[in-house]
Amino acid sequence: MAAELSAAQLIERHRATLDKALQAIRTREYWSPYPEHPKAYGDGAGLSPADGKAAFEAVLGQRFALDQPGTDDWTGGEVSPYGIELAVSYPHPDVDALLPAMLAAIPRWRDAGAETRAMVCLEILTRINAASHEFAHAVMHTTGQAFTMAFQAGGPHAQDRGLEAVAYAYEEQTRVPGGADWVKPQGKRDPLRLRTTFTAVPRGIALLIGCNTFPTWNGFPGLFASLATGNPVLVKPHPRAVLPLALTVRVAREVLAEAGFDPNLVCLAAERPDEGLAKSLAVRPEIRIIDYTGSTAFGDWLEANARQAQVFTEKAGVNTVVIDSTDDYRGMLSNLAFALSLYSGQMCTTPQNLLIPRDGIDTDAGHKGYDEVVADLAAAVQGLLGDDARANALLGAIVNPQVLERLEAAPSLGSVALPSRTVAHPEFPDAVVRTPVIVSLDSAKPDAEAAYLSECFGPVSFAVAVDSTADATALLRRTIREKGAMTVGAYTTSPEVERAVEEVCVEESAQLSLNLTGGVYVNQTAAFADFHGTGGNPAANSALCDGAFVANRFRTVEVRRPQ
Amino acid sequence: MAAELSAAQLIERHRATLDKALQAIRTREYWSPYPEHPKAYGDGAGLSPADGKAAFEAVLGQRFALDQPGTDDWTGGEVSPYGIELAVSYPHPDVDALLPAMLAAIPRWRDAGAETRAMVCLEILTRINAASHEFAHAVMHTTGQAFTMAFQAGGPHAQDRGLEAVAYAYEEQTRVPGGADWVKPQGKRDPLRLRTTFTAVPRGIALLIGCNTFPTWNGFPGLFASLATGNPVLVKPHPRAVLPLALTVRVAREVLAEAGFDPNLVCLAAERPDEGLAKSLAVRPEIRIIDYTGSTAFGDWLEANARQAQVFTEKAGVNTVVIDSTDDYRGMLSNLAFALSLYSGQMCTTPQNLLIPRDGIDTDAGHKGYDEVVADLAAAVQGLLGDDARANALLGAIVNPQVLERLEAAPSLGSVALPSRTVAHPEFPDAVVRTPVIVSLDSAKPDAEAAYLSECFGPVSFAVAVDSTADATALLRRTIREKGAMTVGAYTTSPEVERAVEEVCVEESAQLSLNLTGGVYVNQTAAFADFHGTGGNPAANSALCDGAFVANRFRTVEVRRPQ
Repeated sequence: MAAELSAAQLIERHRATLDKALQAIRTREYWSPYPEHPKAYGDGAGLSPADGKAAFEAVLGQRFALDQPGTDDWTGGEVSPYGIELAVSYPHPDVDALLPAMLAAIPRWRDAGAETRAMVCLEILTRINAASHEFAHAVMHTTGQAFTMAFQAGGPHAQDRGLEAVAYAYEEQTRVPGGADWVKPQGKRDPLRLRTTFTAVPRGIALLIGCNTFPTWNGFPGLFASLATGNPVLVKPHPRAVLPLALTVRVAREVLAEAGFDPNLVCLAAERPDEGLAKSLAVRPEIRIIDYTGSTAFGDWLEANARQAQVFTEKAGVNTVVIDSTDDYRGMLSNLAFALSLYSGQMCTTPQNLLIPRDGIDTDAGHKGYDEVVADLAAAVQGLLGDDARANALLGAIVNPQVLERLEAAPSLGSVALPSRTVAHPEFPDAVVRTPVIVSLDSAKPDAEAAYLSECFGPVSFAVAVDSTADATALLRRTIREKGAMTVGAYTTSPEVERAVEEVCVEESAQLSLNLTGGVYVNQTAAFADFHGTGGNPAANSALCDGAFVANRFRTVEVRRPQ
Repeated sequence: MAAELSAAQLIERHRATLDKALQAIRTREYWSPYPEHPKAYGDGAGLSPADGKAAFEAVLGQRFALDQPGTDDWTGGEVSPYGIELAVSYPHPDVDALLPAMLAAIPRWRDAGAETRAMVCLEILTRINAASHEFAHAVMHTTGQAFTMAFQAGGPHAQDRGLEAVAYAYEEQTRVPGGADWVKPQGKRDPLRLRTTFTAVPRGIALLIGCNTFPTWNGFPGLFASLATGNPVLVKPHPRAVLPLALTVRVAREVLAEAGFDPNLVCLAAERPDEGLAKSLAVRPEIRIIDYTGSTAFGDWLEANARQAQVFTEKAGVNTVVIDSTDDYRGMLSNLAFALSLYSGQMCTTPQNLLIPRDGIDTDAGHKGYDEVVADLAAAVQGLLGDDARANALLGAIVNPQVLERLEAAPSLGSVALPSRTVAHPEFPDAVVRTPVIVSLDSAKPDAEAAYLSECFGPVSFAVAVDSTADATALLRRTIREKGAMTVGAYTTSPEVERAVEEVCVEESAQLSLNLTGGVYVNQTAAFADFHGTGGNPAANSALCDGAFVANRFRTVEVRRPQ
């Protein structure tokens, strides 16, 4: 079969982008090939805003056909956090038919080699990028992210993370040459001579278990890392956030077929309500890689039980900010207010615990007592979200009922420094939009610990009064070690405190942002430059993205022959 | 404290060697900095043969002092497979004192950075290399390897594997720069600016669980990979093969101290008889990395239970040779005879099952029936080992009573094609030296499978009559998939058969040697060029050495600051 897209055409289109990505992961400077501004699209550069919206609306209420083998039924029923029913139904797999079809797709994909695989992955990403406006609506109406965030984090930023994974995968596979002439001197005798060849071989089928809040951003790294290293990928989305990954699977299958590969290299496994499909798939012998983002309980279960697979997990954590002192009090408050508000605190990187000495902190605006700092932060959040339009644009909607329950229960945990309020949405009257709550806790009170040493995922943060900055760093250490952390923040003008916090982060393996007062927030990381998580504390067993994230997704088979 | 050995001095001495190693792992051509010929040593280049022997003899009957904290007692009692009692006693650890001392050594070692750590590791390897003659006797009298093999595999070849691991570790840690300026354009507004720094941080204490047969060759990769990535290493040798690793620990501690680091970065944990020290150490929270070579049962136990650690295991496997046809019948027979005889088949890479079509094979010497092939192979082994001196030089001694038991039980498994015989050793009358047994099995008989589908570690191989070459490749596939394999060999003149066997190895992830008839044997691999295992079948979960072997031994901590 002649492919519509030849390897040469793909190399012509994408090799330069791959090379830039390879350079970016080495320099770790700012770089992205995918414009993040919604206005950059349309007019020849991908779907326009209107076309993207129309494309999204066209799938609503329909069967999302993928022409996969082993479709025994249709399932679905996503309801947008903005209140609308998507009413899309997706193929439900007969796993015993689907997995063999995926395995059968391996040899040609494996034999194509690392470069062709990378090029096909980049073509997939390029087409996903062109559909960013369609993805934005899909992400918005499954995660509750506000439109701009759904566009950026669910679109170009997720695509960046996917490309980053492709670059790592390509580099890892090409560290070893395709072959070598091995000639060992033997003194006066003839040397020993062998011709060796090396082939990167996939492990088997990779299972991507998607999450509710960031289906593409958290899903693309594993998906593309596995695919680029030769593994078919079975995508099992979160039942509340199927559409963004279904769109992804559709694009991937289309590109694979055009490039002459079996589209079953990427398949969707949508699940019926309460079916527990992830659990049964995870222990199938054909599944040799699993990428998962979600609860600690299921992540731990996967690590313990899916022993036939390489398991990459991102689980719960308790993110902490140490507030010791600052030379930009207003900047600190506004930066923190934004970090707490963005997507209603529903990011795995949102700060939860703000550790503040009970005697207060020194600032450029004078010494501020604990209560004053907490009140000023509450006021900053209130100011930021005082206008409903702005609040809606920043907060998005509450992703699911569990988050709402936690938000509603939070006031009982301590003293409420900032109550949550309901925000009306102009376009979607049934949208569930809430401002974050800040609860003040005293670390000296024994019952406070149960609150601040658990992840309370959602728009809930705890201002925690501690005895001193030293007490704060000790609590930071304990929190990372016992509960894990995706992010740590700190504000200080003291070089000693800065060193102490850095030392804790280095020893407990957590990513640290210091004295952020401007337009960069502790909960945001950029592909190519920043690592998301470390893989060294309980919040995640891998980082996005590094060598360890890709190196064990394939193995190298050597064949030796005498020359 | 001023170090006797500065980083600058170490770079001057070793940087060029590291660079050559970095190049070798990319080209995978032949390279080694450590001469493998025993005569290359002495006369200014390391210990002479006589001095090495004297150094070995000087430790016999003594306490092997290491000046480690937390030594509560002395233990030991190695008996050489050549019959002599070593009577060395080693420090027995009080783990609750030793582990904290090792943890305390981390910060300075971590802060020294990847290059300095690599240089210190190379200095350790250089001093071990200089003591190769001493190590040779230690390896010989713990493993039973004959002197030349003990010298080469236990000395320079093990050192090569250690250096290879250092090179991989260095490369992996330096893929990310120490820092970067991150500048993100913001249209008309000022760009966002951050200064990011990246630090490779160790996971914690690494535990090396040594094996009986290749304490240095199988031990050095994990030891040096962990140390070079910043982790202290606790060395728990096999109770029958302590001395080679105790010598290693002594050299490492000496170099670390001279270079200004805490010698407790490398400690020995010798165990009392039946203490099960590996098991209790493996689940300590301080232990974050484990390298293990040994039985499948304990390897599986480690993988299931040492969940707080990255676990690298090499376990049992069933190595297979497919014999389809050859254009060099004599070369094939002599190559296989050597492969089966070397170190009495006590290599994890020694072929066990020789699959031969019952209708025989085509060769340059005409068609040979199954029985003829088996008889000719038996004759080749007999010829190779007919002379006792040569037999002793090739076979070495039986490493432990369990191997002897298996050898003695083997004849009951099938029809004996070549019986084992006892070889007298001229120097060591109590040495346990046996030639290998070849047992013929018919795959058509139901009871044969139990024999050929289990690892029978030691000088036992099975000639297995199969229906056809296609039957052989099917059995090869099943054997690798179910039992694992460190090596696969095949002899064929048919391109189709060659492709079929390659396909099996690529699909089941096993290393393949084709048509070896000269001076390279299927059971030998060379560092820098060859991978030992694939990490993709049940025989081992990692390969020596690749990116995956080192990438998860450290994590990268990023600190971001506004510029």
